[in-house]
Amino acid sequence: MFDLKLQKLIETALDEDVGTGDITTLSTIPADREATGRFIAKQDGVLCGIDVCRAVFDFVDPTVKFNALMKDGDRAEKGDVIAEVSGNARSLLTAERTGLNLMQRMSGIATATAKAVDSVKGYDVKICDTRKTTPGLRTLEKYAVKCGGGSNHRFNLADGVLIKDNHIAAAGSITAAVSAARNNIPHTLKIEVEVENFDELREALECGADIIMLDNMSISDMTEAVRLVGSRAITEASGNMGERNLAEVAATGVDLISIGALTHSVTGMDISLKFKLS
Amino acid sequence: MFDLKLQKLIETALDEDVGTGDITTLSTIPADREATGRFIAKQDGVLCGIDVCRAVFDFVDPTVKFNALMKDGDRAEKGDVIAEVSGNARSLLTAERTGLNLMQRMSGIATATAKAVDSVKGYDVKICDTRKTTPGLRTLEKYAVKCGGGSNHRFNLADGVLIKDNHIAAAGSITAAVSAARNNIPHTLKIEVEVENFDELREALECGADIIMLDNMSISDMTEAVRLVGSRAITEASGNMGERNLAEVAATGVDLISIGALTHSVTGMDISLKFKLS
Amino acid sequence: MFDLKLQKLIETALDEDVGTGDITTLSTIPADREATGRFIAKQDGVLCGIDVCRAVFDFVDPTVKFNALMKDGDRAEKGDVIAEVSGNARSLLTAERTGLNLMQRMSGIATATAKAVDSVKGYDVKICDTRKTTPGLRTLEKYAVKCGGGSNHRFNLADGVLIKDNHIAAAGSITAAVSAARNNIPHTLKIEVEVENFDELREALECGADIIMLDNMSISDMTEAVRLVGSRAITEASGNMGERNLAEVAATGVDLISIGALTHSVTGMDISLKFKLS
Amino acid sequence: MFDLKLQKLIETALDEDVGTGDITTLSTIPADREATGRFIAKQDGVLCGIDVCRAVFDFVDPTVKFNALMKDGDRAEKGDVIAEVSGNARSLLTAERTGLNLMQRMSGIATATAKAVDSVKGYDVKICDTRKTTPGLRTLEKYAVKCGGGSNHRFNLADGVLIKDNHIAAAGSITAAVSAARNNIPHTLKIEVEVENFDELREALECGADIIMLDNMSISDMTEAVRLVGSRAITEASGNMGERNLAEVAATGVDLISIGALTHSVTGMDISLKFKLS
Amino acid sequence: MFDLKLQKLIETALDEDVGTGDITTLSTIPADREATGRFIAKQDGVLCGIDVCRAVFDFVDPTVKFNALMKDGDRAEKGDVIAEVSGNARSLLTAERTGLNLMQRMSGIATATAKAVDSVKGYDVKICDTRKTTPGLRTLEKYAVKCGGGSNHRFNLADGVLIKDNHIAAAGSITAAVSAARNNIPHTLKIEVEVENFDELREALECGADIIMLDNMSISDMTEAVRLVGSRAITEASGNMGERNLAEVAATGVDLISIGALTHSVTGMDISLKFKLS
Amino acid sequence: MFDLKLQKLIETALDEDVGTGDITTLSTIPADREATGRFIAKQDGVLCGIDVCRAVFDFVDPTVKFNALMKDGDRAEKGDVIAEVSGNARSLLTAERTGLNLMQRMSGIATATAKAVDSVKGYDVKICDTRKTTPGLRTLEKYAVKCGGGSNHRFNLADGVLIKDNHIAAAGSITAAVSAARNNIPHTLKIEVEVENFDELREALECGADIIMLDNMSISDMTEAVRLVGSRAITEASGNMGERNLAEVAATGVDLISIGALTHSVTGMDISLKFKLS
Repeated sequence: MFDLKLQKLIETALDEDVGTGDITTLSTIPADREATGRFIAKQDGVLCGIDVCRAVFDFVDPTVKFNALMKDGDRAEKGDVIAEVSGNARSLLTAERTGLNLMQRMSGIATATAKAVDSVKGYDVKICDTRKTTPGLRTLEKYAVKCGGGSNHRFNLADGVLIKDNHIAAAGSITAAVSAARNNIPHTLKIEVEVENFDELREALECGADIIMLDNMSISDMTEAVRLVGSRAITEASGNMGERNLAEVAATGVDLISIGALTHSVTGMDISLKFKLS
Repeated sequence: MFDLKLQKLIETALDEDVGTGDITTLSTIPADREATGRFIAKQDGVLCGIDVCRAVFDFVDPTVKFNALMKDGDRAEKGDVIAEVSGNARSLLTAERTGLNLMQRMSGIATATAKAVDSVKGYDVKICDTRKTTPGLRTLEKYAVKCGGGSNHRFNLADGVLIKDNHIAAAGSITAAVSAARNNIPHTLKIEVEVENFDELREALECGADIIMLDNMSISDMTEAVRLVGSRAITEASGNMGERNLAEVAATGVDLISIGALTHSVTGMDISLKFKLS
Repeated sequence: MFDLKLQKLIETALDEDVGTGDITTLSTIPADREATGRFIAKQDGVLCGIDVCRAVFDFVDPTVKFNALMKDGDRAEKGDVIAEVSGNARSLLTAERTGLNLMQRMSGIATATAKAVDSVKGYDVKICDTRKTTPGLRTLEKYAVKCGGGSNHRFNLADGVLIKDNHIAAAGSITAAVSAARNNIPHTLKIEVEVENFDELREALECGADIIMLDNMSISDMTEAVRLVGSRAITEASGNMGERNLAEVAATGVDLISIGALTHSVTGMDISLKFKLS
Repeated sequence: MFDLKLQKLIETALDEDVGTGDITTLSTIPADREATGRFIAKQDGVLCGIDVCRAVFDFVDPTVKFNALMKDGDRAEKGDVIAEVSGNARSLLTAERTGLNLMQRMSGIATATAKAVDSVKGYDVKICDTRKTTPGLRTLEKYAVKCGGGSNHRFNLADGVLIKDNHIAAAGSITAAVSAARNNIPHTLKIEVEVENFDELREALECGADIIMLDNMSISDMTEAVRLVGSRAITEASGNMGERNLAEVAATGVDLISIGALTHSVTGMDISLKFKLS
Repeated sequence: MFDLKLQKLIETALDEDVGTGDITTLSTIPADREATGRFIAKQDGVLCGIDVCRAVFDFVDPTVKFNALMKDGDRAEKGDVIAEVSGNARSLLTAERTGLNLMQRMSGIATATAKAVDSVKGYDVKICDTRKTTPGLRTLEKYAVKCGGGSNHRFNLADGVLIKDNHIAAAGSITAAVSAARNNIPHTLKIEVEVENFDELREALECGADIIMLDNMSISDMTEAVRLVGSRAITEASGNMGERNLAEVAATGVDLISIGALTHSVTGMDISLKFKLS
Repeated sequence: MFDLKLQKLIETALDEDVGTGDITTLSTIPADREATGRFIAKQDGVLCGIDVCRAVFDFVDPTVKFNALMKDGDRAEKGDVIAEVSGNARSLLTAERTGLNLMQRMSGIATATAKAVDSVKGYDVKICDTRKTTPGLRTLEKYAVKCGGGSNHRFNLADGVLIKDNHIAAAGSITAAVSAARNNIPHTLKIEVEVENFDELREALECGADIIMLDNMSISDMTEAVRLVGSRAITEASGNMGERNLAEVAATGVDLISIGALTHSVTGMDISLKFKLS
């Protein structure tokens, strides 16, 4: 994974965790002491962030050995050994918390995504994320969604057009907004329109929207909307989907269900790291 | 709040959210269009991050007016108007997601902390955080814990000594580790030792540890430990406290309960921002 | 124009131009001396970068007054006054070169684009740019293309899919490559395939490519290709288009003509800035 | 070439080109696929930026092998193989565009410089650059001028004194300006004065200017000016030299001819990179 | 020594020393020339910064070999060889000045600290530093104080509480200030109060201050103050201690003497680096 | 003073001084408390850094008022009020230490320089600095030397040529080294050669060196050297000049005396800042 921003994030994270130095470790552990450690899953879950965790240890000390026994996307069971690290004891203790904080969060997202994906098994529908991510961690969190079996919505405001109520109000109509966008954006991008009722839906279809976001619709309305759209556009169900019965939503025939809670309300996966000094 | 790092975080967050430009807004909303918006609590909770949210809008466009009607630490009820913004419509739409992402997360932490604090009401005990924070957001998350009525543990590895098993193993004994730390650290810092049994507890007390962390102890052991310590040191209960009955823990007489889940497993508070174009 | 990167570019540019200080100016011009200046077009052309130039002067000294008399996208004739600046003489001299270097380059690109657009007048075709931009200046250069009447291709490798020979070879076939992309990318993006002959073209159409890039084709092949595609996909003519007869290419009926030379081979527009000390 | 800024430029360039990830390549090319590629000159020209291009590939992936067959300053003929790269296919595709963009531009500058140098062959005169460089690329562009056989004017406002009309107006006279500079600058720097007529020229000589810039003079005036100066100062011809007959200018006997067009109006040299997947 | 900020400091230092390139070396020394050099103490002193110096050479060129013959904290005698470097001659000359500037300054601080420590030999007192350090170099300068046998005061305003006159005035009383601090800070930090007379001293002791700073007291007052405090708090003598008779101060029984001059008035240790080209 | 690097230095300095927050001030001083303060000279000296100090307070809080009563270069007497500040009390306390650390150091350098300049009064000689400055502070320290009446040597390795023994050894001879430099450097720079004896001196003169550095010469040799040079070059005395009798050196007739100790061994000027809360 080539990620220019990851090094900066790791630097920021270590800077805030280490401050002017790990005085406990520097006081008690000799500079040349070696140690080994094992990352162990303390609960079932889908792993994510193993390579990111490796990058943290590598950033702190390139001589540390990080041996992954499982890989991103794997389903771990409680007790599984995820990876082993060995090397200078001071380096390991310095990297520990930052590495764990990232891997636990990413695995938590992957695990929640996998649960959502499982709940719509059998339906031809994708679970996808939103822009409700943690500031500074978007790329990592969207990667975690994919590791959990989900797919990604746009990464930022530049790589997707999503026309909402304000844009429509300013442009005058859905038709005007879609037309303005089409004239202005790279030809490589599709145009998505958020609709709340059938009038809006029909107008969006007529002016050639590529994707229709069905916002906060009831199951019956959503079913009717999907029928109306047919193969003319992609349909996306949206709006507090984290609290909806996903199988019921999937049964309407929508192509995608986007869930903000996948990234805005994360329960970290419990992973421990126990060291043994040699 | 003077925070040198906040500007960098906002810049990073906007950079990842805006990318090379908000093409939808630039296509549909005229450059000189004005709008107003209101932040509304969609659920009860303790607010936090209002000034941080203001800083986001200010970063994007210093001419935007941000008028806070409530303040950090306030308990909001569903429907309360938290703040109003007004100004250039493009600016408001550009800042929206980043501002909300931060305020929702910080308010989620404050709300969870307040719940924990409420659950130990009547006991002379503090709820405090850990280093299990989101990389890049530690200062903000620790601030949220305080807004929820909690207190802060050390901010990083430099402003507190916490001697754990590995440090003890490397130093040879608790006594040796405490002595090594005392000789090496600024005299402005206290020394905390993590203990798992009564032998360790007694050694830590005898060599003058200022704070004793009682790790994963049963309620009865914790009660006995607190009794043994008396006024000789501060006691801190630790270890999956997010899953414990906090009132029961508080009843043991410990001085502090530290809870990693306050920051590693956050449910964002639901806050909406609705714009009205003028 | 809200551009997070622009401030950094200006800082880098001033740093390399000013170094440790403009010793000539500091030696000869009193600290409180005032001056005025006028930006004058020394040739006909399409202006671009006026606001960027203003940002340079504002960066150096926020008290400088920059009064634009024309705006980006305007066609200037030789002798036109583009803008006036006034303020501290040292500040003006410090900002001068950097401001001019940017505006002259951006106006050069806009002018060349306008010339290309003019040459295909009457055809329903767009002139667009490529990724062959100056490192560090892509956003500005793509903005200049739009000011000249052109449109933008993708801004980076993340906001557009362009499947070329290597991707096809690795995936096994055009069909396999398109399918792999479709499963992996955000649903907001279209898929473009570069083809060199009619077999490739047919396969790309059959597997549902949204855009077909016709690479280095003869006029007759291009005409036939456009006919084959019909309304099933967008067509883009590519390959040394800077050296082709654009009207002839446009006459084939392609939707877009992408021209690397717009940004990789730029002739700066001649603009002067003359100061008058007060 | 030890260049602290080059790494930052490469990082900026890759960031703007790769964005959140090369989705086409990630979708179609397996993570462990290898490839080789050859840089080939598509036209005659003077090469420059080969090591810079190598640095781009090295930045993306230090395991990529970059084998240069020619070196900066070499004259390439159409068809010459400049360098070969081999390694991970994803890495090669990620680095390709940024590496080419830099090398093509630098080679374009070197080629134009060489052409200027050739046109004054036989005269004891140097072709040199100006500060009219692309923001962010000055060091690279000045290096390219040297590779083309030219020499460098000052790199920034701190490493050379150039007294122009405004400085003279503010100081009161050429004599006053030169004297002020001499008292204020490091003794390691020479003093250059721009003159437009013979009165100014005489005053500059009398007060000991080390270098005389002859601005926009006719050939006959320039000839007379050079005669007047004799060996008392270095002479530099300046002012739209890109549009002048350089041999004619050189024949006046000036020591240097500075040409802004070398860097402000660059035609990129055509260089291709073709990959072969293994 | 893992120090995230050190790389940035070295980069800044090299940037300001090298500028756009070491033109003397580039002009006169072939790119492949090798050389060796020896760092020699030109006076007696306590060494510090050897590893920092190594990091400078490593930053410039990782292939340079740096062989330390002595280590930080060692007492060097005039003529001792501290370290040897060998490698590319251009790299060695580029790193030379920055490496020396850092090591000479750090060794100067270590030497001055050692002299202060020696002057209180026999007393149970620590010599410590203050926040009067060189901006940007605090971590290095505090490390130098430890290498000289001193100890460190707080590293910044976040890892120690020091209540002075203004805090007391704002809070209303020493008691109020101490109480406010205790309620607000992490439990890992002690509280220090600066006192100027015995009334303040008594109040500080009564409200439980952990550390008492005796500011600018006479020897007799200090002796009485130390007696009054007894074992109830740590005592620190402060206020122009660089100009006091340290043995006399130590004889009062204070626990610490803090000396700003250790870092605000530094005499660099004379260390030379002589190269030999091979 | 327009200094792009100054803002970064201030940010770095505040970051290392404030850390995660000034907990003492935040605990004891209300957010809206106002205060005033006065900077007072506690000893005689030449002031420098007043505007830099102002920039620190401005960086922390732009609403703080900083009123300078004296200016850089002024000679202060003990007791003089240098400047007054007023505004938010928390802001003032946050900026205090960083502002003072910079102004005290810069004034210390200006004072030492002025003393050196005074000691050669009556001689036509300049006192100048070297590259032996504090990493990160070079521009500020060289500015301080000028405020003390000295002049500046080159700012970095790019804005001056100084040919030393290693360069001569690599080039083969002084003549070869000077010739190589002349062919390679911008024509705006002079060439300086370091000589240790008369043979070297004669060769340097013959090949046209612009400046001769007389390194570590006895007074009699220096006198003879100056006589030999006459008006053919500038002469600079160098080598532990901080320990020499400067008047004696000046009497030899050299044009410049460069003194590393001006910046490598600085005694901070004693300046106090006393606040009064309103």
